[in-house]
Amino acid sequence: MPSVAVIGLGNLGRVLASAYLGHGHRTIVWNRSPAKADDLVTRGAIRAATAAEAIAAADLVIVCVLDYDKARQILTPAAGALRGRTLINVTSGTPEPARELAAWATEQGAEYLNGAVYAVPQTIGTQDAFVLYSGSSAVFETYREQLDLLGAATFVGTDPGLASLYDISLLSGMYGMFAGFFQSVAVADSAQIKAADITSLLVPWLNAAAAALPGFAAEIDSGDYATETSNLDINAVGLANMLTATKAQGIGVELLAPLQTLFESQIAQGHGAQSLARTVESLRAGR
Amino acid sequence: MPSVAVIGLGNLGRVLASAYLGHGHRTIVWNRSPAKADDLVTRGAIRAATAAEAIAAADLVIVCVLDYDKARQILTPAAGALRGRTLINVTSGTPEPARELAAWATEQGAEYLNGAVYAVPQTIGTQDAFVLYSGSSAVFETYREQLDLLGAATFVGTDPGLASLYDISLLSGMYGMFAGFFQSVAVADSAQIKAADITSLLVPWLNAAAAALPGFAAEIDSGDYATETSNLDINAVGLANMLTATKAQGIGVELLAPLQTLFESQIAQGHGAQSLARTVESLRAGR
Ligand SMILES: NC(=O)c1ccc[n+]([C@@H]2O[C@H](COP(=O)([O-])OP(=O)(O)OC[C@H]3O[C@@H](n4cnc5c(N)ncnc54)[C@H](OP(=O)(O)O)[C@@H]3O)[C@@H](O)[C@H]2O)c1
Ligand SMILES: NC(=O)c1ccc[n+]([C@@H]2O[C@H](COP(=O)([O-])OP(=O)(O)OC[C@H]3O[C@@H](n4cnc5c(N)ncnc54)[C@H](OP(=O)(O)O)[C@@H]3O)[C@@H](O)[C@H]2O)c1
Repeated sequence: MPSVAVIGLGNLGRVLASAYLGHGHRTIVWNRSPAKADDLVTRGAIRAATAAEAIAAADLVIVCVLDYDKARQILTPAAGALRGRTLINVTSGTPEPARELAAWATEQGAEYLNGAVYAVPQTIGTQDAFVLYSGSSAVFETYREQLDLLGAATFVGTDPGLASLYDISLLSGMYGMFAGFFQSVAVADSAQIKAADITSLLVPWLNAAAAALPGFAAEIDSGDYATETSNLDINAVGLANMLTATKAQGIGVELLAPLQTLFESQIAQGHGAQSLARTVESLRAGR
Repeated sequence: MPSVAVIGLGNLGRVLASAYLGHGHRTIVWNRSPAKADDLVTRGAIRAATAAEAIAAADLVIVCVLDYDKARQILTPAAGALRGRTLINVTSGTPEPARELAAWATEQGAEYLNGAVYAVPQTIGTQDAFVLYSGSSAVFETYREQLDLLGAATFVGTDPGLASLYDISLLSGMYGMFAGFFQSVAVADSAQIKAADITSLLVPWLNAAAAALPGFAAEIDSGDYATETSNLDINAVGLANMLTATKAQGIGVELLAPLQTLFESQIAQGHGAQSLARTVESLRAGR
């Protein structure tokens, strides 16, 4: 059983350390504010005095701090300890700093894997958690079992920035859904419908509508946007009517108006009879 | 068993008529283009020569045409037949025309119920279909069994515009989710990730994230936005980083930038430590 060091014992880091401890791994912990390690130490974790000490003591080093700047601040003075170590960074961020950290860690003689965590502390180690990894496939294969302890582990590619890229993509989808939720609740509120009441209808409706997305994805991948049903013309008319009615309720339409603009841009290019999925063409890089 | 007239035999209307026919109801049909009734007539439906004739022949009249203008065009010359009839309109639209049609139908001596259909023709009569109704609760109670044949029937209130209002609200949520999907796919595409690949991760992720919405709704209804976890400050920083990284990939951010503006507006009002759900306050009528 490999020993595991967890550097960063915030809300997420503490739960990661706890998971390894609970599964019988020798677990070394370090946090800027040492008190956050106390409970873990009581349960058997080993407290390191410095990040370098934690790194030197473990086969596998997991870094989970606020952002990449903090990760670099912590790791730079510990550079000498990194040679021959395996570093897995699950701090959230964007692709470029992930690539930079990977390049730096590699220079120090460490193997590097980057992770994007889809979980909250309460769901770590449950079926609801998954983590995407990119960077060293050797690290992923070697420590697969340890990674799966946190949540279903998926390797998405050797570019260390790729997990973050997936992260941005998936979070974009989530924020779009949240924007739709806020709009939905505001419209309902304008007619004295409680948020809980509309949400109890909205959640199953969204789950049903999400089932249409793989069909859209197939159209996008094939570039064949022929459709018999939900074309851009129909959706543009429907959305325009909705936005007008929303304004009539006194509610702003700034969250959905940009989607209407994308529909209209595709229609202006002569694609009104094609699938709604074609909207993505207006967003593609270089368009 | 009440007899049912279906006026409007487009993609949806034909399936509604077929459902009643299949369940043994005497079914009268009328469509502007008569040929769309042929299959139904072969299966036992009665073809009416005019909309007035269809109305006069049935206990229950269901109207399903392109929009409210068309519904009015069809019903106006048939006004004399409406006295004592029950009219259920499932044509999609906005609250105001629904209220106007209800008032007009009531003047003609008809009872009126308005419906918003959450189904595609293929799912009518299955577990996946539901229909919201508003207007006459007496009609809803009397014909409940017939309504449930199409999809789970829910009565949302006596204001005939209310079903359309719910419709706008739920479709807003759906379009927000679609906007997030397009953004997600465009980001993935910028890194040569196939739409199908990102969508296979996105759909379960969205379903999981949708589970957070009832909690947000409870915060909104209570007005208590205290939170330990996902506050506006954290989300505004995260979304800003995402938008910067999205631009770095060459992808437009017009679909999500307005959400960031709403986050910042709440933060500027001093609510950064409160729940993300507070975003809805920036959309409320009169804000
Ligand atoms: N929480 C979640 O649900 C979740 C889910 C997925 C991803 N993530 C990501 O995981 C990472 C950690 O999240 P979290 O929830 O654990 O955050 P958190 O509770 O705010 O903890 C932040 C951690 O960063 C450390 N830190 C901050 N500034 C530092 C500095 N200047 N020098 C050294 N250490 C510093 C903190 O140390 P101190 O204790 O000394 O302040 C603490 O260990 C973030 O990138 C987050 O986006 C979190
Ligand atoms: N299809 C769905 O999945 C779905 C789901 C939920 C709600 N809806 C709503 O249900 C309604 C009908 O949808 P649909 O899919 O059946 O539409 P559709 O296939 O386009 O059919 C339109 C119907 O309206 C009639 N119509 C159009 N213009 C007319 C006019 N000037 N005078 C008389 N009749 C006219 C058509 O008659 P002709 O055959 O003579 O053209 C046809 O019966 C719409 O409001 C739609 O938004 C549809």
